[in-house]
Amino acid sequence: MSIQTTSAAPALLERFNQIRKRTEIICNPLEPEDTVVQPIVDVSPPKWHMAHTSWFFEALILKPYLPGYEVFHPQYAYLFNSYYNSLGSRVLRHQRSTLTRPPLRDVLAYRKYVDEHVNRLLQELPAKDLEQFRPVLELGLQHEQQHQELLITDIKYIMGTNPMLPAYQPQAARKKQSIATPARFMEVPGGKYNIGYQGSGFCFDNELGVHEVQLEDFEIMNRLVTNGEYLEFMQDGGYGDFRHWLDEGFTLVKEQHLEAPLYWVKQDEEWHRFTLHGLEKVDLNEPVCHLSFYEADAFANWSGRRLLTEYEWEAASQAYPPQQGNFVESGLLEPAAADPAKEGVQQLFGDLWEWTYSAYHPYPGFSKAPGPIGEYNGKFMINQMVLRGGSCATPESHIRTTYRNFFHPDKRWQYTGIRLATKK
Amino acid sequence: MSIQTTSAAPALLERFNQIRKRTEIICNPLEPEDTVVQPIVDVSPPKWHMAHTSWFFEALILKPYLPGYEVFHPQYAYLFNSYYNSLGSRVLRHQRSTLTRPPLRDVLAYRKYVDEHVNRLLQELPAKDLEQFRPVLELGLQHEQQHQELLITDIKYIMGTNPMLPAYQPQAARKKQSIATPARFMEVPGGKYNIGYQGSGFCFDNELGVHEVQLEDFEIMNRLVTNGEYLEFMQDGGYGDFRHWLDEGFTLVKEQHLEAPLYWVKQDEEWHRFTLHGLEKVDLNEPVCHLSFYEADAFANWSGRRLLTEYEWEAASQAYPPQQGNFVESGLLEPAAADPAKEGVQQLFGDLWEWTYSAYHPYPGFSKAPGPIGEYNGKFMINQMVLRGGSCATPESHIRTTYRNFFHPDKRWQYTGIRLATKK
Amino acid sequence: MSIQTTSAAPALLERFNQIRKRTEIICNPLEPEDTVVQPIVDVSPPKWHMAHTSWFFEALILKPYLPGYEVFHPQYAYLFNSYYNSLGSRVLRHQRSTLTRPPLRDVLAYRKYVDEHVNRLLQELPAKDLEQFRPVLELGLQHEQQHQELLITDIKYIMGTNPMLPAYQPQAARKKQSIATPARFMEVPGGKYNIGYQGSGFCFDNELGVHEVQLEDFEIMNRLVTNGEYLEFMQDGGYGDFRHWLDEGFTLVKEQHLEAPLYWVKQDEEWHRFTLHGLEKVDLNEPVCHLSFYEADAFANWSGRRLLTEYEWEAASQAYPPQQGNFVESGLLEPAAADPAKEGVQQLFGDLWEWTYSAYHPYPGFSKAPGPIGEYNGKFMINQMVLRGGSCATPESHIRTTYRNFFHPDKRWQYTGIRLATKK
Amino acid sequence: MSIQTTSAAPALLERFNQIRKRTEIICNPLEPEDTVVQPIVDVSPPKWHMAHTSWFFEALILKPYLPGYEVFHPQYAYLFNSYYNSLGSRVLRHQRSTLTRPPLRDVLAYRKYVDEHVNRLLQELPAKDLEQFRPVLELGLQHEQQHQELLITDIKYIMGTNPMLPAYQPQAARKKQSIATPARFMEVPGGKYNIGYQGSGFCFDNELGVHEVQLEDFEIMNRLVTNGEYLEFMQDGGYGDFRHWLDEGFTLVKEQHLEAPLYWVKQDEEWHRFTLHGLEKVDLNEPVCHLSFYEADAFANWSGRRLLTEYEWEAASQAYPPQQGNFVESGLLEPAAADPAKEGVQQLFGDLWEWTYSAYHPYPGFSKAPGPIGEYNGKFMINQMVLRGGSCATPESHIRTTYRNFFHPDKRWQYTGIRLATKK
Ligand SMILES: [Fe+3]
Ligand SMILES: [Fe+3]
Ligand SMILES: [Fe+3]
Ligand SMILES: [Fe+3]
Repeated sequence: MSIQTTSAAPALLERFNQIRKRTEIICNPLEPEDTVVQPIVDVSPPKWHMAHTSWFFEALILKPYLPGYEVFHPQYAYLFNSYYNSLGSRVLRHQRSTLTRPPLRDVLAYRKYVDEHVNRLLQELPAKDLEQFRPVLELGLQHEQQHQELLITDIKYIMGTNPMLPAYQPQAARKKQSIATPARFMEVPGGKYNIGYQGSGFCFDNELGVHEVQLEDFEIMNRLVTNGEYLEFMQDGGYGDFRHWLDEGFTLVKEQHLEAPLYWVKQDEEWHRFTLHGLEKVDLNEPVCHLSFYEADAFANWSGRRLLTEYEWEAASQAYPPQQGNFVESGLLEPAAADPAKEGVQQLFGDLWEWTYSAYHPYPGFSKAPGPIGEYNGKFMINQMVLRGGSCATPESHIRTTYRNFFHPDKRWQYTGIRLATKK
Repeated sequence: MSIQTTSAAPALLERFNQIRKRTEIICNPLEPEDTVVQPIVDVSPPKWHMAHTSWFFEALILKPYLPGYEVFHPQYAYLFNSYYNSLGSRVLRHQRSTLTRPPLRDVLAYRKYVDEHVNRLLQELPAKDLEQFRPVLELGLQHEQQHQELLITDIKYIMGTNPMLPAYQPQAARKKQSIATPARFMEVPGGKYNIGYQGSGFCFDNELGVHEVQLEDFEIMNRLVTNGEYLEFMQDGGYGDFRHWLDEGFTLVKEQHLEAPLYWVKQDEEWHRFTLHGLEKVDLNEPVCHLSFYEADAFANWSGRRLLTEYEWEAASQAYPPQQGNFVESGLLEPAAADPAKEGVQQLFGDLWEWTYSAYHPYPGFSKAPGPIGEYNGKFMINQMVLRGGSCATPESHIRTTYRNFFHPDKRWQYTGIRLATKK
Repeated sequence: MSIQTTSAAPALLERFNQIRKRTEIICNPLEPEDTVVQPIVDVSPPKWHMAHTSWFFEALILKPYLPGYEVFHPQYAYLFNSYYNSLGSRVLRHQRSTLTRPPLRDVLAYRKYVDEHVNRLLQELPAKDLEQFRPVLELGLQHEQQHQELLITDIKYIMGTNPMLPAYQPQAARKKQSIATPARFMEVPGGKYNIGYQGSGFCFDNELGVHEVQLEDFEIMNRLVTNGEYLEFMQDGGYGDFRHWLDEGFTLVKEQHLEAPLYWVKQDEEWHRFTLHGLEKVDLNEPVCHLSFYEADAFANWSGRRLLTEYEWEAASQAYPPQQGNFVESGLLEPAAADPAKEGVQQLFGDLWEWTYSAYHPYPGFSKAPGPIGEYNGKFMINQMVLRGGSCATPESHIRTTYRNFFHPDKRWQYTGIRLATKK
Repeated sequence: MSIQTTSAAPALLERFNQIRKRTEIICNPLEPEDTVVQPIVDVSPPKWHMAHTSWFFEALILKPYLPGYEVFHPQYAYLFNSYYNSLGSRVLRHQRSTLTRPPLRDVLAYRKYVDEHVNRLLQELPAKDLEQFRPVLELGLQHEQQHQELLITDIKYIMGTNPMLPAYQPQAARKKQSIATPARFMEVPGGKYNIGYQGSGFCFDNELGVHEVQLEDFEIMNRLVTNGEYLEFMQDGGYGDFRHWLDEGFTLVKEQHLEAPLYWVKQDEEWHRFTLHGLEKVDLNEPVCHLSFYEADAFANWSGRRLLTEYEWEAASQAYPPQQGNFVESGLLEPAAADPAKEGVQQLFGDLWEWTYSAYHPYPGFSKAPGPIGEYNGKFMINQMVLRGGSCATPESHIRTTYRNFFHPDKRWQYTGIRLATKK
């Protein structure tokens, strides 16, 4: 990771407290029962997220750097380690839902205990000592933000697979009628582009290994693909026509009888979709979301266009600098329709993670850090695809032009969407 | 089912209220988080048990017999039907753990609502009308008692698979030191025996079809097999020697690396077992429990004896009339050591369900009732083995000499144990 | 096993040579390619059957009793042991199809080698020495006959799952038009019956433990259930109506989309069935075959009757002594229609194995032999149902009134059928 | 595909006949039994390969272009279509081993029939008509060559999983003692490279979309990694140390208890490996082979180097032009030790396919052909890794500098090996 930030301890502490508090705000509307289940292996119980992010600070900051620190509970490291082999054995991922105990209130006490000790550490420590662990502390905050996004997607899955379809955040009249924005393809000139993080703030190790790439001219869609456009694909028999699909994707479609994005439900002959505010009619102008890479790619093939590579996406975001995005701070928790009044390329940031046709592999010159931090990203660099730009569940301060998110191509429970490219 | 009971409505109502209340008492020590999980498909979430038993009264009593009754919630029939195809579609068994909603407090409100309406029905109805549904109401109470036993075993499993091994009911110094009771084999004379329920109270349909069987002389062990005796089998390499095992059992042993009963844990070179009161040292004089049929049969083969058939068990319980048993009312929630002072055959009732070497099949003349009641027992009469005598988790008023419990031969999470027989 | 036969060595030798030769005659129409595959785990490759039955004689007769015998190949014991833990490790059952080598011609040479040595042993041995191993030799012959039947059913499966549906034994105009025999129910009086083998010939150990049972009066169908009768069940929606089915059976029906017996194929709106002579139109008067226990039981429930227990079947066959049956010697290799001219109960022997509603459990007093022979039957006494009477693939000399065959209730690849019973 | 070749029909015909004949030569040492099995889903039965390659010519050449052509057998299209949805339904891949019929001799007759008709077509057709289908015919020949390589790897797997470890091609004293070639790292200068096929011969569609890439300086190992080097990794505990592994790879290692390359067997404390010539002692100077991508990557991490990308590999092969390689024509059928006398970079071609750290994705500008040809490559462009350079099982005329082979990262049954790179 790259950490050149040198903010003073007080500022850092305030940021720590704000971010930590935000996790609890997200979980506030939940019943204790909601916090313990794991309906699919991808989804972690909210209680687990809350404890795991605390364990991260305990294991990597408090234990090594706060003299005399005593762990909150001797078994929590075993219960709440996610995947760090360097940090000992742990509950297997698919067994996270067996952890009815510790109950929610104990986990909240654990958070409080960790927070108090981090506060003490930051308040009492001589300034120079902070430098020893500032990068890890920063990583802990970024990690917490990542889990905040996962919390939202996991809560959505927990609610959305309950036959009662309970709303996480009921909202009367979520928004006024949306307006259509015609699709246009905007030029991005070819040439040499620098890829990877070159700034002075935080970035993950997978963004390092800055390197030049050579691109040809291409064009990029001015906004995300909409529900209306995707519905055309569906109505044209898109899910039934092998010609549009990668072979493994088409096999999945048949095995799982897929015929629409995740959370879509047909009621009274009309398509609805489950949102965190309850069931809604599908809005044709909003971006289509909760798609697998396979669906995104099949749609692109059907449309005669293609997905971008992650290099093209990064180049385009250099050519069309980010506008205000729909991040988690908007409170919408769902993607919003594009704005017909806007010029240029919209929605590159926020709204939905955009599937690219790039495998999540190391950049040239990538190297893993020694110790547990080295297990953060590198060991997942196989069989996953890169997504770019953040979503309506991403904290605005968490995202960057060079940020590389990654999921297996069959995953649909994240806020994922489609942007098309085409040759000039 | 057979119901000739004619107790007046007030007595019946009191019994109804007592039994319903007992379910809630069992769940009282639970956290809301405990009530929603399903660590294996055999275990149902406690919240589900509480709602399902209420739905049983709603579907089979209130809807048909209480004029103008409105269901508590239109979706609950879908959520809490267990396996009654006659009563509509339902959440699949292995998905019960996805039901974080309705939360526990709604389920408790549902119970209250159903109870109030059953009370109203029984209080207001003309006496003669009661006869219409008295058998189904009685069945509902027996059903509630069955689920009370399942609640205890399921709670034990939920706690016992948590790495923290939380106690359901902490208990300092559970009992004084136990004393050994030497094993003796007691004669049961051969001849004709009547099998099946002939009384005038309640019984399940699977106990009907009374018939004569012809038995030869045999001998029955005076008590259940103890932990000490089972430990000898283990120490003699019992789990590793194919000669003692049914082939499917030995395959299971190897696949799952079994080497001890469920809930046994070796700590500091000594065997402990998880109980509802926490982890305890294994007491050599207590009955060994949480065994599969395969383990029970392998132990019997190793010992040179055999298991009883269900006919032999029923004959023996006629020859050695029941003594006071260790049922759920004792509050022990674990089997207790036999009493060396007692003559005759002990522990036939209570303590542990005894695996018999009898498949759970229809008695001659068995016939299913029409409608949903017909789905109660008959459709499970394949691939399961009969167990007899009730356990320390069974309500005393629920058990009978003719009672036939049944589980697949690999199941270990019930309170199951071993009694041996031998030829004279 | 029980062997009191005292036939002289020459007669025994002739029988040995005849039975061994019969195995090769069965395999004669096969291509080498047919002899190596295992389309489902239940089916063994024909080449394996041929080698395994030879290994049985090598391991249990030649090695212990023929001085100086050298095994044909040091690895064959590993390759062709089926399930005898006492006789060393072995290729796992589901990997039998990987054995392309030794090729068929080596297996035939193995058979020849074993046969020659058994001939030498029997010709040269002093008569008194024969008594040492006569029982095992007899068991080897019975074992060979069992595998002959399995060869026929396994070959049928191998051919019947090939999209080309090749005939094993093409047969122009297999038979003249069949005639219907009306169903009648014939009385069998209740009372005491002796169950189990009491003769002086060969029987398996699972037939011993002779014991009395007490039966009530019942009636038995005069012939097997026909294709026509089963078709009525199908046309009445039998496969779709849960009320007729055991729960595990109905689950299977839905999971595997079952709608007809195994080998039934609809062509041009008409039901056909694959036979060893190729595809044929379903003959309404012939017995319905290749059914699971679940299907047999569901049909019985639909018809308002029930299956027999194995005790009832044995009692009925005492009451209605066997007539000439359709065994493998008839060469039909398929069940034949009943004979309307015949009085009494037909088809008890031959044609089809009849599913009984009796689990395959030990008779009272059953005991396993020590050593490998003890693994022959006893370790399979769980989760299987007894079938009685033999089939059109059974050698006539192999079957007895007391013979207990057994399969798991979902199996359909054997020649299995239905006979109904009813209360008087 | 790109086909500008304009060789006259006679030359083409001769090539056709040579290539077709080569397939049969490969299968010559097989028993009929060897040709029908499918021990894992990746492996196809040799009989199937022989028929499938013939069906390819029948479906794509003879049916459309030979007037009046009658297919050899109406069901063969169903039996021997591999994955072309455009060409109708087919036997599922994992059921190929059920096809005992047609027997081998029918498949050989099928080959003869197809060959005769292709000969007739090429001999009788007016020259100008050839141009209509010359590209597809060329594709058919390349396809046949691909299946020739698969035949060799599949035969190796079939033999190598047989407990008898039969040799495909026994060979006394395969070679003289090998000599070590020290590892050196050779410079490849960075800069712009053209990637993709620009010649005038045949190439697959996945090599088109020629484009420039920008590379940095790097160094490449002068030969393949040897058994001796890999053994050091093993002896250093490489398979047990998570730090070297991608997470999915390490999970696989634990689940499958991997501890050595495929086909390695420890005998008398010494490592041997199964080859097509039988079991041999591991030669420390020969290239290590039959590794998954995970193993290749873990070895690279352990060694402090890394794998190449496919771009780097292609650039290196421009910098170090191919020397004579060990292809299938050498008859070795196993990789050979490098030559210490040679300068430069050896073994880029032949010996072993080299795993690259590049996902098999479309080049920029890739487009699928319409119709069945479009299903040849494109639909597999997900979750697979690119391998370069051909192997000792590849026909020399089949390989090119730009050739992209691809397998899932867990596959080990191909002739796969490791070449390392490092930053300058
Ligand atoms: Fe984490
Ligand atoms: Fe129930
Ligand atoms: Fe056998
Ligand atoms: Fe092919």
